Order: sequence, then C-alpha cells, then structure tokens
Amino acid sequence: MTTKWVYGFSPEKTEGSKELKNLLGGKGANLGEMSSLGIAVPPGFTFTTEACLEYQRLENSFSEEMKTQIKSAIIEVEKNTGKGFGDPKNPLLFSVRSGARVSMPGMMDTVLNLGLNASTVTGLAELTENPRFAWDSYRRFIQMYANVVLNFNLSMLESTLEDLKEARGVELDTELSAKDLEQLCQVYKEMILQESGISFPDEPMDQLWLAIAAVFGSWNNSRAIKYREINQIPHEWGTAVNVQSMVYGNMGDDSATGVCFTRDPSTGDKRFFGEFLINAQGEDVVAGTRTPQPINDESKNDSNESLSTLSSVMPEAYNELVEVYKKLEMHYRDMQDIEFTIEKGRLYLLQTRNGKRTAAAGIKIAVDFVSEGLLSIDEAIMKVAPEDLNQLLHPRLDPNFKKNILTKGLPASPGAASGEICFDSDSAHLKAEAGKKVLLVRQETSPEDISGMVASQGILTARGGMTSHAAVVARGMGKPCVAGCSDLKIDAKAKTMVVGSKTFNEGDPLTIDGATGEVIDGLVPTIAASIDENFSTFMSWADERKKLEIRTNADNPEDTKIALSFGAEGIGLCRTEHMFFEPERIIAVREMIFAENTTDRKKALKTILPFQREDFIGIFSALEGRPANIRLLDPPLHEFLPHQENEKKQLADHLDIELKEVEERIEKLHEFNPMLGHRGCRLGVTYPEIYQMQVRAIIEAALICKGKGIETKPEIMIPLVGIDLELSYLKEKALEEIERVFIEKNDKVEYKLGTMIELPRAAITAGDISKHADFFSFGTNDLTQTTFGLSRDDSGKFLGQYIDKRMLPIDPFVSLDQKGVGFLIKHACSEASRENSSIHLGICGEHGGDPSSIHFCHEIGLDYVSCSPYRVPVARLAAAQANIEAK
Amino acid sequence: MTTKWVYGFSPEKTEGSKELKNLLGGKGANLGEMSSLGIAVPPGFTFTTEACLEYQRLENSFSEEMKTQIKSAIIEVEKNTGKGFGDPKNPLLFSVRSGARVSMPGMMDTVLNLGLNASTVTGLAELTENPRFAWDSYRRFIQMYANVVLNFNLSMLESTLEDLKEARGVELDTELSAKDLEQLCQVYKEMILQESGISFPDEPMDQLWLAIAAVFGSWNNSRAIKYREINQIPHEWGTAVNVQSMVYGNMGDDSATGVCFTRDPSTGDKRFFGEFLINAQGEDVVAGTRTPQPINDESKNDSNESLSTLSSVMPEAYNELVEVYKKLEMHYRDMQDIEFTIEKGRLYLLQTRNGKRTAAAGIKIAVDFVSEGLLSIDEAIMKVAPEDLNQLLHPRLDPNFKKNILTKGLPASPGAASGEICFDSDSAHLKAEAGKKVLLVRQETSPEDISGMVASQGILTARGGMTSHAAVVARGMGKPCVAGCSDLKIDAKAKTMVVGSKTFNEGDPLTIDGATGEVIDGLVPTIAASIDENFSTFMSWADERKKLEIRTNADNPEDTKIALSFGAEGIGLCRTEHMFFEPERIIAVREMIFAENTTDRKKALKTILPFQREDFIGIFSALEGRPANIRLLDPPLHEFLPHQENEKKQLADHLDIELKEVEERIEKLHEFNPMLGHRGCRLGVTYPEIYQMQVRAIIEAALICKGKGIETKPEIMIPLVGIDLELSYLKEKALEEIERVFIEKNDKVEYKLGTMIELPRAAITAGDISKHADFFSFGTNDLTQTTFGLSRDDSGKFLGQYIDKRMLPIDPFVSLDQKGVGFLIKHACSEASRENSSIHLGICGEHGGDPSSIHFCHEIGLDYVSCSPYRVPVARLAAAQANIEAK
Repeated sequence: MTTKWVYGFSPEKTEGSKELKNLLGGKGANLGEMSSLGIAVPPGFTFTTEACLEYQRLENSFSEEMKTQIKSAIIEVEKNTGKGFGDPKNPLLFSVRSGARVSMPGMMDTVLNLGLNASTVTGLAELTENPRFAWDSYRRFIQMYANVVLNFNLSMLESTLEDLKEARGVELDTELSAKDLEQLCQVYKEMILQESGISFPDEPMDQLWLAIAAVFGSWNNSRAIKYREINQIPHEWGTAVNVQSMVYGNMGDDSATGVCFTRDPSTGDKRFFGEFLINAQGEDVVAGTRTPQPINDESKNDSNESLSTLSSVMPEAYNELVEVYKKLEMHYRDMQDIEFTIEKGRLYLLQTRNGKRTAAAGIKIAVDFVSEGLLSIDEAIMKVAPEDLNQLLHPRLDPNFKKNILTKGLPASPGAASGEICFDSDSAHLKAEAGKKVLLVRQETSPEDISGMVASQGILTARGGMTSHAAVVARGMGKPCVAGCSDLKIDAKAKTMVVGSKTFNEGDPLTIDGATGEVIDGLVPTIAASIDENFSTFMSWADERKKLEIRTNADNPEDTKIALSFGAEGIGLCRTEHMFFEPERIIAVREMIFAENTTDRKKALKTILPFQREDFIGIFSALEGRPANIRLLDPPLHEFLPHQENEKKQLADHLDIELKEVEERIEKLHEFNPMLGHRGCRLGVTYPEIYQMQVRAIIEAALICKGKGIETKPEIMIPLVGIDLELSYLKEKALEEIERVFIEKNDKVEYKLGTMIELPRAAITAGDISKHADFFSFGTNDLTQTTFGLSRDDSGKFLGQYIDKRMLPIDPFVSLDQKGVGFLIKHACSEASRENSSIHLGICGEHGGDPSSIHFCHEIGLDYVSCSPYRVPVARLAAAQANIEAK
Repeated sequence: MTTKWVYGFSPEKTEGSKELKNLLGGKGANLGEMSSLGIAVPPGFTFTTEACLEYQRLENSFSEEMKTQIKSAIIEVEKNTGKGFGDPKNPLLFSVRSGARVSMPGMMDTVLNLGLNASTVTGLAELTENPRFAWDSYRRFIQMYANVVLNFNLSMLESTLEDLKEARGVELDTELSAKDLEQLCQVYKEMILQESGISFPDEPMDQLWLAIAAVFGSWNNSRAIKYREINQIPHEWGTAVNVQSMVYGNMGDDSATGVCFTRDPSTGDKRFFGEFLINAQGEDVVAGTRTPQPINDESKNDSNESLSTLSSVMPEAYNELVEVYKKLEMHYRDMQDIEFTIEKGRLYLLQTRNGKRTAAAGIKIAVDFVSEGLLSIDEAIMKVAPEDLNQLLHPRLDPNFKKNILTKGLPASPGAASGEICFDSDSAHLKAEAGKKVLLVRQETSPEDISGMVASQGILTARGGMTSHAAVVARGMGKPCVAGCSDLKIDAKAKTMVVGSKTFNEGDPLTIDGATGEVIDGLVPTIAASIDENFSTFMSWADERKKLEIRTNADNPEDTKIALSFGAEGIGLCRTEHMFFEPERIIAVREMIFAENTTDRKKALKTILPFQREDFIGIFSALEGRPANIRLLDPPLHEFLPHQENEKKQLADHLDIELKEVEERIEKLHEFNPMLGHRGCRLGVTYPEIYQMQVRAIIEAALICKGKGIETKPEIMIPLVGIDLELSYLKEKALEEIERVFIEKNDKVEYKLGTMIELPRAAITAGDISKHADFFSFGTNDLTQTTFGLSRDDSGKFLGQYIDKRMLPIDPFVSLDQKGVGFLIKHACSEASRENSSIHLGICGEHGGDPSSIHFCHEIGLDYVSCSPYRVPVARLAAAQANIEAK
C-alpha cells in the first residue's frame, strides 16, 4: 500500500483532524480540524512527520511518491482557490511553516509569499492593483527565504534596506515606493548570489522543495536538538510541514490581522480578549511599531483605550470571529489562543491552539468549564499541570521588572526572595531582628545554619545539589533557595562574594528566583502568593479522585500546621535530628557523644528526654489524631560536634577536659564517606540507649496527649536498615522500652514500628525485613544515592553534563529513576506484600513531591507519598491525575 | 513412635556410627564407629543432641522416656562389663563428656570416675587391692565434679591439697598416702557444703543426672555462645553427652595411657608417631609433670631419646595399637589422632578423630593417600582447606617463641613481619636503604604511601577495614598487614605511638601477624614460606578439576610474574591509578588536574602517555599472551593532589601560580563522599581526553609488542558505569581513538572493551549495559559498599559489633554477601547473558580470593575470578573444590 504523505485541508475536502496530531503536528492537525468544522481556513496541505523521517532515511531526498502527492495537493489547492502556483496572471502563493507534535521554538521560522518571482509579482501587482504591495511582498519573501531557507545573513539585507531608506530620506518601510522595492528585490538577489554563490530560485516548485527540505533539516539543527534535550522531546518524532495558501491582512483598510484569547489568560475570567492591526501582516503585530487596537471593549486597557475596536470598525467580521471562537472553545473544550486575518472584509483563521495561562487562570478556567458543562471534573483536573501550583503557593518575581541576571544555580526551592546578603547565621539573625530582609549566602549549609535560614528570606549556596541540606531544608520551610551555584566565589571570613567581575559585600542587595535558579543583582519586586475559592474547589475535586494518601515531611508544629493547611493527611517523615541543635540541647548531645560508657551516655540522654517529649507533644497536638511517622536519629554523631575553635573550647570547658581531647574525639569520629558511615540504625546497634530514649519520648508524649484527650498515631521508624536482623534486634530493644513505659505509666497507646527502605540491600531482602515491620517508607534520596553510587552533595559538579549529554533524562534526585531505583522499590513492594500482606507502604524522599514520581508510586500501589509542606498541593493534584489516568 | 534418645556402644551391640554425627556429636559417632569395627572401646552410650534440645524445651528437665532409656542403657553396660553402677563390690564407674557435632573448646570439661561414693570407693579399693588408687580416684572425682558440675571454685580445693602436701612435707600428689587422700575427700565434701550449701551427691544416679544436666547447660554458657558466634556454629545444633565406662591407665606398671598420630602432623611424613605414660591417667599427660615416653623409635626426639618405648615395654599392646591405627586410617581415609589407655595390659581406644596438621603436612598426606590408593584425587583435593595454603605462601611466627601480644587489629593480609617502626614513607625508605627491616605504622594509608609500603616488611594501621587501602595494597604486594587497630594512638608528627600504657618511638622493634591480627612487642623470629613438589602435584590436580579461570589483580610486571608463578591465567584487574604516583608522573598528573581547558589538559596528558605505554608494554611482556584486563582511571582527581604544605608550595612554583590558588583548587575538588563522587567513568565523561590517552597507551603498547612478536590480549575496562549510555558514549570515544591509532600505525590488534559492574544500578540494568560490553567484571568491593550503603574505610569502627551480635555472619568485605550483593550479581548475569550470549563474566573484588565467594561464583556460572597474587593458589584450590562439590 502506498503511504499517504500529504493531507489536504480546504472547505471542500479535509483529510486531517486533531486526532492525527502525531502525524500532522499540532498546527497541521488543528488546521485540518478547523477546516472540518467549516471554519474559514486558507486551503493548503500538510506534509507529514513520517515524511520527515523518511526524508532523513533517504539521506535528505524526497521519493518519487512524495513528489507526486505534493503535486496533486497543489492542484487541489489551485482548484479551491481558483489560482495557479506560478501562474503569472493569478498566482497562488503559499506560506510554509514547520509544525511538530509540540510547539518547538528551536525550529525553522515561517516563509510567507512563496511562489513569487519576476513574473508572478507582476501578476500580483496587476491583480491587486497594488504594485507597492506586490513588490513589498516579494521583498519580504526574498528576505525571509534567504534567511531561513538559504541560511543567508539577514543583517546584510537589512542594512541595505536601511541604506535605501536613508537615501530616500524616509523612516518607515511603507514610505518606500513600488519602484524602490522593485530595485531592492534586484539588489537582494544579486547580493545573495555574490555572497553565497546561490542564485535565488525563481521557479516556484524549486522554491517549495527547498523550503520543505529546510524545514525538515531544521529538525536537526543544534537549537532544536538542545530544546528537545531540555524538554525531553524524543528526537524520533520528526516535524511536519504546513503549506497553506496566503491570505493578506495588508490589502487595505478592509483588511486586518490579529490574535485573541477566548478567556483572560492572566486571570481566567470569562471574557473574549484580543488585539488587531488594520492593513497589516502578522509580523507587524509582533514588530510593535504600531500599537495594536482592542478587538472589543472588554479588551481595552490604558494604552489602547482611545483606539477603535474591531467590533466597531468591522462588525461583521467581528461577529463571525465571536461565533468562531465559541465554536472552537466548545470543540476543543479548552481556552483557545487564535490567530486570524481579514482579507478584504473576509475572515480567515490561521491558527488555533490551547492558550498558555497563569496557574490562577488555569484553575479558574478548569472550574468554570466544569460549571459550564464543557468538561467533566476528571477532565478539568487533567488540565492543570501540578507544578503550576507552585506559582500560587510562593511569591514570584514581577515579570515586568527588568532583571540583571548575574548567574544561575539550581532551582532548589521555588519562590522569589530579595534581601541583604549575609554570610553567616549570626549576622542573618541580627539583621533580621533589626527588621531587615536578608538573604543567607553560604558555601553550603549544615544543621548549624538552621537558625540563619529561619531568619532569612531565602538561601543561596555555592555547593550542593537539588537534595543538598540547603535545598531540602528550604523546601521544608517553604523558603526560596538557589543551590549549587558554582560561579559564586564566597569568602565567608572576609564576608565577600565574587560573581564574575563583581564583588558583593555583606549588606548588598541581591535577589534569587528559586523557581528558575536565577541570581539577580539588586532588589526585584515580587508578587505575593494567592489562594482563592477556585483553588479550594479544584483541590477538593482532586482529593476525591486520588487514591494515594498525601503526607508531609515536617519536624515541628509550625511546619505541620502549614502542611495541614495545604491538605496533608499526616506526617510521613519527622526527622528528629534537627531537634538536637537548639542551644540547650546540643550541649547535652555533645556530652552524650563524649560519654566514655553507657552510664554516662544514659545520663546525658536523660537531659534530652524532656525536650524530645515536648517536641512530640507539640507535633501530636498539631496533627489532631493524624499519623506521625517519626524517624529515630539518623546522621552520624560527628555532625553534632562543633567546627569552630571557640565552640570547641567551650565544649572542652563544659566537659572539663583538654581542648586536645575534644579535637582528638572529633578526629576519631571523622569519616571518609559519612553517607555510608556510622549512622542510622548503626547508631542504634552500637548505642541502643539513644534509640531507647527517643522511643520513650515518643510513647510518653503519646500517653500525655491521651491524658489530654488528644488522639495520636505514632509510627516509630528505624532508619538505614540493610539487614533484617538489625531491625529485629532494634525492634526488640524498642519494645522492651515501650513495655517499661506502659508499666511505669500504667497505661497504653497504639503505635506502629517500621523501617525506612533506603539501601539496595534492604530493598533486595525486603521480604525478610517486612516480617518485623508494620510499614516501609522508601527513603528515595538515599536509595538513589546508593543505587547510583552517587553522592547528592558532590554530584552537582558533573550531573549537569550528564543531562546535557542526554545520559540521564533528568536529575535522578528530582524525579525518581524508575528503571534503576524503581526496580528496587517494585521488588521490595512485591516481596514485602507477599511476606506481610498488611504492611503499609509509602515514600518519603524528595521524590514524594514530584509529579512523575507520584505517578510511579500510584502505579506500583504504594499507600502514601510524603513531601515538604509546600509541595503538598502539587502532590495531591498529581495523585489525582495518576488515578484518573489509570482508569 | 518413641524417639530414641540413647545410643549404646559395646563389643556386643553398637547402635551409633559416624553417619550419625549430627545426632550423636563427633565423639559419640566415632565411639560407635570404632566399636562396630571391633576395636576395643570401653562400653557406654551417647545421649543425643536432640535430647539436649528437648531438655531445653522442657525448661531444663528430662522426660520420663529419657530416664527409662538411660536406665536401660546403664543395665546394658553393666551386662557388658560385669560391673554394677553403684555396686559397692564391683562398682561400674563412668566418664561423662560433652560431644557436639564439631569440637567446641567452650564446652564442659570431662568428669571422670563418676559413680564413686563412700561405699563404692571401698569396693574399688578392695577389688584393685590398691586403696591409694581408689581414694585418689575419688579425690579426683570430687574435685572435677565440684568444678565442672557444681561450679565450685577449684582453687579453694587445690590450695587445701597444697596445704596437705606441705603438712606432709611431700611434693607430688603420688606421695600422699591412701589415708591422706581419704581425709582429703572428707575435707573437700565439707568444704563444698560449707561454702556453697550443696551437699555433695552420694547416689551414683544423682551424680549422673546432674552431670548430664551440666553438660546440656554448658551448651549455653557464655564461653560456648561466644565460640559459636566466632566460628559460625548454629546455636540450634545442641550437644550430645557420652557416658562411658572407665578404664584406668593408672592401675600399675602394666597400665598406661597415651596419644598418637597415624602420620607426622608437622610434615605429613608416613610414620606412626606418639607418646605415652606408664601408670597414669590422661590428665597426667596434660599436666606435664613427667616427660612422656615415645611409643616407638620413630617417635623419639631430643627430650625423650633415653626413655623406653611402648613397643619395647608392652610389645603386645603396641602391636595391637599398630593394627588398630592402620584399620582406623584405612577406615576413615584420613590421618587419625588417637587416644588410648592400657589397663592391666589390655588396650582400649578412648577416642579417634581426624588429626590437625600443618598445611604442608595436609598436602603431603593428601598426595600420599592418593598414591597409596586410599583416596581418589577428588577426595584428596577436598581434604585441604584453601585458606591453609596461606601458611605455605607467607612467613609465619615461630610458634615456640613466647609472644607479648599488645593488642589485636584486623588480619588484613597474611604473613608475619618484624621490624623497626616508621611513621612515614620517607623514613621507611631511608631506613630500608640503610639495610634495616622496617614496619610502616600509619593512621591509614593513601596512594602516597605506596613507596613506604614497598620499603617495609609489613604495614600496621589504626584505621580502615579488611578492604581499606592498606589491606588491599598489602595483599597485592603479599606483605603482612594488620589494619584498623583502633587501640593504637598514633601521633605521626611526634613520631610516637601509644598502645595501652606503653609508648613506642620511631625505631622501636615491633612484630605483626597478619594472619591473626596480633600486634606483638619486640621482634619475633619467623619461619619462611615453603613450596615443594607435593604442592605442585596437588595444585596441578586442582587445576585439572576447576572450571573457573583464575586471574590476578596486578598493576606491574613484578606482581604479574609472582602471580603467574602461583598459577594465575591472566590479569583480571590492572589498576592504572597507582602508575600515576611516581615522582616524574605525578607532577604531570597535577598539571593535568590544574589545566583550565582541554588543550592544556591534553598537553599534560601527552607527557604521561609514554610512561603509560611503557607500563603496559611491561605488563603485556610479563603476561606472554595471557589476557590483561586494564581498568581506566578510577579514583577522584583530588586523590592525586598534595596534602603536605611543602608539596603544595612546590606545585604552586611548578605551575607558576599562587599557593592560594593551589589551595583553592584542592578545596574545590574536595568531596563529602568521595566514594560516591566524581570518579570512575564520570571522569571519562567530563574529561574524555584522559581515557583517550589511556586507551591510546594500551593500544600503542599492544602494537609495539606485536612488532616484537609478543602476543597480547588487552581488555579495556571502564569503571563505575551505572547507566548504559555512559558506557556507549565512552565506548564510542575509545573506539574513535583506537581507530586513530590503527590508522597512524597502519596496523591493528585484537582487543576487548567492557565494564566493571560495581553499582547496584549497573547490576539492575545489566541487560542494557551488556549490549555495549564484551565483558563484565563484578567489582564486588564497591558493589558491597553501595548495596549495603557501607563505607569500607569507615565500617571498621562498628562492623565488629555486627559480627559479635550475629547480625552479620561475617564481614561482607571478606566473604561475599550472597543474599544481597549476590542477588544483584545473579540478576546481572542472567540479564546480561540473555542480551549478549557471548559476554565474558568475572569478578575482581577482594572476594575473588575468598573460598566461599569462589564457590558462589562457580555456582552462578562466572567465567573467572581474579584475586591478589598471593591468593591465587587459594583460589585455584577453592575453584577445584567448588567444581568437585557441584558434581
């Protein structure tokens, strides 16, 4: 069977439709679709994406069959328009555009007026009785064609045009005469021949084939490849070419061209909204030399208020446009972004597509479409990208303000923040207390910087990746963060930072955009976050549709409350280590670390117990009966030891030992690879009394809450298990302690005990481990680190190159690596479910807030995901979409 | 059906045999076996290991059925001996001993003469007409029983005995009269009652039940538990109890007791060999108060030359013993260790077991047994434990020298070494050049210490595990190493080391035993390694029987030659990084690291190229056509940067930059977790020119060798791949470079290109990766680190506790974790074989030299294992045993 390479569209016969988007590209499919709807679209045809691939397969040549089909399609358009391609008397002219499945900025620009040459231009002049228009069209065609098809340097032609205008003493192109333009065309052609050795093609068919070849070739230009890499578009999709008969908005005052949106793309309000220019072509609107007029009163604003509307100057065409937009919106069931041209009073639609919109508008439109009966709730939910919700939850930079971007780091925590630079926590504190807005700038952050982070508007680090300490903590706090910005040269001691050639001192103003990773000189105004009723309606729909429980990662009552306000259903990960850094506690922790024997260690732990208990009472109270998964101490002990000389001295004084002894102990605890060191349950195994204190604190807190009538659902989580016997041993120790508390207090509470699966060996032997666990929480941060053998704190230096070289589709710390890490998770789930059918399964890594990872979690049947408070709405929506898609 | 708890043995009827070892324990099974062979064994019975478990299940009590069976068994023995248990006239006396499946030093000691009391002792005196003997027997019984059954403090009884001897003015027990001993018995019993409140049991049946209960109880005493933990003996095996009628070697000059070996346990020579004492019991031989006599002329040595032999004093008994030993050796088909007693001229066998022997003896015996037709070659191969070969390959400490053991570290590389302490490579070098033997003592070693390690007899470190740098490199060099000895407090600057209370300075003598981990004060004489013809015969048999190819890890011609002399069939891992540390190279490497752009980097690499080429020519030449698997650069670049201030300064001068710049670069390259950092193929991805230089050096070297008529089989290995696209990208780059070399030199060589599988993700996605690989080499060191999330350099601090607490059966860096890491290897092999049936699979981690890991590699069908040169014979033998077992 012969492959169909060409799909025509015309009022008479249309072969394409929106269902054929993969074959015809988005633009081609929509042109076919509009044509079928009886909307006036200039006739034309689409050369398919498959033709593009075949063209490449044939080493950049066209098969005879393709040529035959293209010729028939041209004859069809000639019939429809009554014009002839290359006919000097009534020339058919084409626009040629690329059109891939998705819009791709890297691709070839449009070529208009294809088919013009020395003879057809004269025909056009006679036919339109407008020589200037005809020669100007030819001039434009040569210019465009030379640029985008022949790859000729545009500026050379443009400066010739400028020279001519100067010689004629005029300012605008339109002031040049037909004669001028005719001359210019000649000069252009000679110039092209001279400079590039190419004689400008005169034969319309040659023009067309070269243009099509250029479109296909542009699929593999470096801009397009780069764009696809960044946006993860497969290279094997190919692009289609749309060849469409020209219509002109610049044929006089009864002609016009414009763009419109079926709803307000900023707010989502239901108002038809657009602008147009009389006697102009599309490019004139873009050029911005004339102020576009509002299409109707609703489209008026400060700058175009005085201009007349399309509804008043061309009421008929306007009314037809209104009918068309309603038809299109109804048909596509989405807000449309429409391009139209009016040629001598007659309306043509050149393009329609789903319009880009702000997150707020997206939600309003989705909600309105449901109430208008255009969409089902399921469909409405699928219309909003979960990531877009970030716009609503965080302040963002005023898009109208001109930014001086210094450099870019990783977009580690969304939102924008401006403030005075501080290089350490203490000054951040002091300045914040003095009422100043500050930005904390650090080489990297450590738990000791928490107070400085709290005091700051945002955090900027020179090191670390998307899951570095700064990034994780900032996301937890909902604060903007740009991490791993390696262009910064920070000298914390000297309190200076160098970016490129500029040196910044403490107190200098700086802005970061945590959504883009931009670091911007000076202060940039921000737009506040906003949540409204539509948001609530929309999210409640999502909640009804999701199967996954959405929990949050929080380790204090404040964060817990924020997360609950965002819809969290419990805590999926409460890290206990942050609790140890407050001044009155850290000293006890250090005493504990320096203890020479179990007795001394227990003594120090006794000091910490009441604090821990209070922590948990606060969290349980905030949760009001929702589950709290509490992870026992995880980091290596050396993280709690002082780094500063004076702190070391203080510690030595406090412990009444020599400074040298402090230093020796620190040296002794030093680890080559702390990530793989003496941490997690390994601490529990060597110092069972630490975990016993924490378990006691949890259970005592739950009993106290019970006494106050507050329901609790404590879940005790033992981290970093790799061997089933670790868990069974530590479980036994925990149960002994719990039993002791129950006896002492003569009361009981329900609790669960389980483990984090964050090591490959834990996932592999999950069947054995599950026998001792009420739940598994997949710690996908560490699981990704160990599965890849990749330190998230160090990978920032080279991971970018991996993405650039397409070795990895995306940072595996951002979106779960389903093939590798996912294999282990699936294996663990199936082993665990077989051995322990009642086991509760969830995920608490950073991936818990990533939509595609959430889809994966839904597919493999996890019970919940847990993410930082500000990601909770994103996760709720992603979970709903995953369930709707699965149906 | 009633369970059979008791198995009798006697000339009349024997129920046990050596096949019932699990049920009867080793001792019980052999007593049964000997009895069945018609060898004179004092009649008795064995209470089974199952009875032990049942006794525990019944909360330390005996069932009625057990009691009934024991009583019948006693009646049987009474019939056989013609004596009565508790009969005052002709008393039957028992010995009671524990006997587990394997010999267990932690268990209860023997109780002899059970059944004696005030009335039976008189009977015994009358019957033997030897009151002194009877009362001495009773005295000994009370003493033993009090100690091992009643848990009474032995020293109290012993001092009473000493007091009595003093009062009598005598020195030996034998000089005390019957009256004295009778009195002593009375005093003992009173003393026991007074001190512990227990009245010494008089009733023989009570004595027996208590003794049996004590044996069963001793299975769970802390010494026994500890022993089982260390030796990985399951706690659920239980122990049997052997109750055997007494015979006496101390009934006069026609009585004797002795031990003998059927061959020489030191050399393996075929000579019957043993010693005995006339008129003595077994414990007298142990006590060493009298010099034992040789059983025959062949057993004579300097100390017993003048004493008469058993063959001369009791020729009949001796001849019977010769018959018996031949029968036993023939029957057990192994060298036997025999205990015998002659009672009034009559020979009794008390025990026989496979005799312990040195490695050299083990091999000689195995080879001799084959030539004597006693064993097949397969059976002979199974008789030698692979680890024992280490004795032959490394010097060991003179066992007769009294050692002052200071502390213990990890037995990281076998062999013993003595020398003067040095704390850094430079002084090690200087002293070694001055002809001194030195021992390098370091906190930990790094590649910079290589020259110091070469100069030293052995290496001792305070940090690091079995696969730390020091351990791995030392094993590669065949040098003794004790690692991770945390009791050492080393001050390298001050050149002192403190162990306990003793301070050592540079130059002080010290000895280490790398086979045991012992650190010994002063110099200890060593016995040199020895390999003889028997070894060669034996190993050639092993080679004929193994399926696995045995390769070696070597990165220079010297090590390669040693490994080949030990039977290596090629190089399985040639690390290239060590090659970069020689003085004239390291500076170029550092230039390369400091290069700001590709051009400068390539320039520096060009300096290194000729060195690398020479390295490979040397290795290829040594290999004489055997395969060489060469790993491209693996460690992070910062490992090559200087740590010392003066070296940094030198580098700054050399590069003509500021010292500060050097420090900044070092700081910038610092990594939090270097193990998971910018290393392996990640370096290749960011700096392709490094790998290209190495690939060029390999191929150019191969071409040069080809020119010289030397065959080569280069295998290029890309390390740390985790993503298939890493390998395909780097393979493409390598192939380009190889093609360039082929064109330049106008010649070609065969080569292979593959990767190391050392990350969980690589194992998981092995199917995809295998499409680009000619071979996989499992890097089980790193695979163990990542699968467990466990840094081998840091785990030394806590892994010991894991072994102690039985959470891990053995250090997973020593013996492959088959359940976790093994799962990944099996998965990878099956995925890879499916996608690429011709792929060659091997292992090159430290596990490649571990017998149980080698068994695993054989089972899952790997093609080869690779280990350090000195482990090659161990691996050959283990591989042969694996294949024989699989049959």
